[in-house]
Amino acid sequence: MSEYVVGIDLGGTKIYAAVVDREGKILATARKKTKAEKGFNKTVKRIAKCAEKAIENAGLQANDIAAVGMGSPGPLDLKNGKIIETPNLKWVDAPIQKELEGLLEKPVYIENDGNAGLLGEYAYGAGKGAKDLVGLFIGTGIGGGVIVDGKLLHGYNQNAGELGHMILNPDGPKCGCGNNGCLEAFASRLAIEREIRIAEIKGVQTSVFKGMDNKSSRLRSKRLAKAFRDEDPAVTLAIRKSAMYIGYGVASLLNIFNPKIVVLGGGVIEAIGEPYIKIVRSIAEKNVFPVAIRNVKIVAAQLKDDSAILGGAKLAWDAVAAKENKK
Amino acid sequence: MSEYVVGIDLGGTKIYAAVVDREGKILATARKKTKAEKGFNKTVKRIAKCAEKAIENAGLQANDIAAVGMGSPGPLDLKNGKIIETPNLKWVDAPIQKELEGLLEKPVYIENDGNAGLLGEYAYGAGKGAKDLVGLFIGTGIGGGVIVDGKLLHGYNQNAGELGHMILNPDGPKCGCGNNGCLEAFASRLAIEREIRIAEIKGVQTSVFKGMDNKSSRLRSKRLAKAFRDEDPAVTLAIRKSAMYIGYGVASLLNIFNPKIVVLGGGVIEAIGEPYIKIVRSIAEKNVFPVAIRNVKIVAAQLKDDSAILGGAKLAWDAVAAKENKK
Repeated sequence: MSEYVVGIDLGGTKIYAAVVDREGKILATARKKTKAEKGFNKTVKRIAKCAEKAIENAGLQANDIAAVGMGSPGPLDLKNGKIIETPNLKWVDAPIQKELEGLLEKPVYIENDGNAGLLGEYAYGAGKGAKDLVGLFIGTGIGGGVIVDGKLLHGYNQNAGELGHMILNPDGPKCGCGNNGCLEAFASRLAIEREIRIAEIKGVQTSVFKGMDNKSSRLRSKRLAKAFRDEDPAVTLAIRKSAMYIGYGVASLLNIFNPKIVVLGGGVIEAIGEPYIKIVRSIAEKNVFPVAIRNVKIVAAQLKDDSAILGGAKLAWDAVAAKENKK
Repeated sequence: MSEYVVGIDLGGTKIYAAVVDREGKILATARKKTKAEKGFNKTVKRIAKCAEKAIENAGLQANDIAAVGMGSPGPLDLKNGKIIETPNLKWVDAPIQKELEGLLEKPVYIENDGNAGLLGEYAYGAGKGAKDLVGLFIGTGIGGGVIVDGKLLHGYNQNAGELGHMILNPDGPKCGCGNNGCLEAFASRLAIEREIRIAEIKGVQTSVFKGMDNKSSRLRSKRLAKAFRDEDPAVTLAIRKSAMYIGYGVASLLNIFNPKIVVLGGGVIEAIGEPYIKIVRSIAEKNVFPVAIRNVKIVAAQLKDDSAILGGAKLAWDAVAAKENKK
């Protein structure tokens, strides 16, 4: 019997894969750039190569792996294993599960990336022990996930939990999804970058772009974090604005779900950490019914960059267990 | 064995009670004004009298009644049967369950009014057969409720489902809850009234206040509905704005919960009906992931003014059944 699974996190910027044991321990990892703009087929091959590299790095072979679980940008068609549409990757109706199963010759299970991230934190991280959780993962976009009474919220078409696309102001900035004023359009890394560029145009001082090869290329979270620690004026403004909007979003989610734990993860949280979460807590507290935040924890993801790969691993292990029970 | 229960709907404006049989059939009803401003104790007595009047109107006596279920403005402390705070009634920590049990000498069960309304529609109305539902009840305030996989969503402190207090714009108008820009502050009957008065000040023509004894008293839904049908300019603007914001809220709720049915109820919906819901559908469709609205119904509450009393009745019947099963 195979003793390991591969968990994969497919992001807008990078692919991240890990070999994981039954206890959620990571044996080895591998990373590749997503390069979604080169088309779906090329990215799928890069995902498979990334998984194979992680297996190789763990000193294992394909037949040591029982299954593969992946967090992917959504919305997803879980029944047919397809990515229906993705604001950040620009693919439509992409049969990712079948293609990956063909390349890896393993059963592959997929979940929305936000769901995968929250599942990882629920199984192995900041959400352990709670039955009602909300997760927000703030990176290139904003992924979300909800666990109600110990189960991932899926909804009628299995596309619940798109928390990044709550409307925070119908007259707000355009979102990658095509609508206006989504939480993602106010608070994602791309939104932070837009705010910094607007502030710079308005004359607010910033040195965050200094030393970048190409000023129009994407700002990475680590560069942002350094500028925030150095109190770069435009960066400070933009990060605070992002955290404020996440605070308003969390207030709404507390009134809607009244969870026990709100887990905040993703590249922005990993890079900035507690100073960001403090602003979120302060805004959320001021904009919610007191009872809906009483004894509720708003915390950083513990697994950091590993939330979604471990959620993918958990997904794979749950599927393996379900198959074993059927026998 | 008692063959009937009493369902009660405690609203900001009126108390409504009904005697209901096991099949959800209403035998008789009674109504009283809430008069919350006269204090909690007086209103509790009015609630008890209203229930007794409904029993009398049904030609029954107290010992024909097995239990009482009530929808109440929240947030509620369900464990201790208290109203914690109510934006519209202004009471704090009001022990409504115990007081009513004392006056009526019956077991009393309470739920948030939005939950009660949705429970009524789920058991006997527009939500029959679906397992994932979202309800919005647009009256003096905005109540909400969510059913996930056949069960009312309660959350960690049992205060989930406060959908009227999603933030639709942090810089928006002040809400009764003390925060800014809640859905309720944009779309409730009080918000519609505010918009009409603002429009009138700005010179938009309106005859909606004509013939009212006191121009500063509350506009009733029926008067609003007549003015809307007569195409009163200020009223048309205000009703459309309310429906638009409900549309944005519904779009967010579809992305968050992906329910099979969205039920819209309350005084405003009952009075205006389909023209209002058409605007909601149109705005929701334009602001949601297509998959999250595919085959989803956005419909008016079928039980109209009776959603919450029938939800209260269902609550009472469920409690009676749970007791019978224990024996």
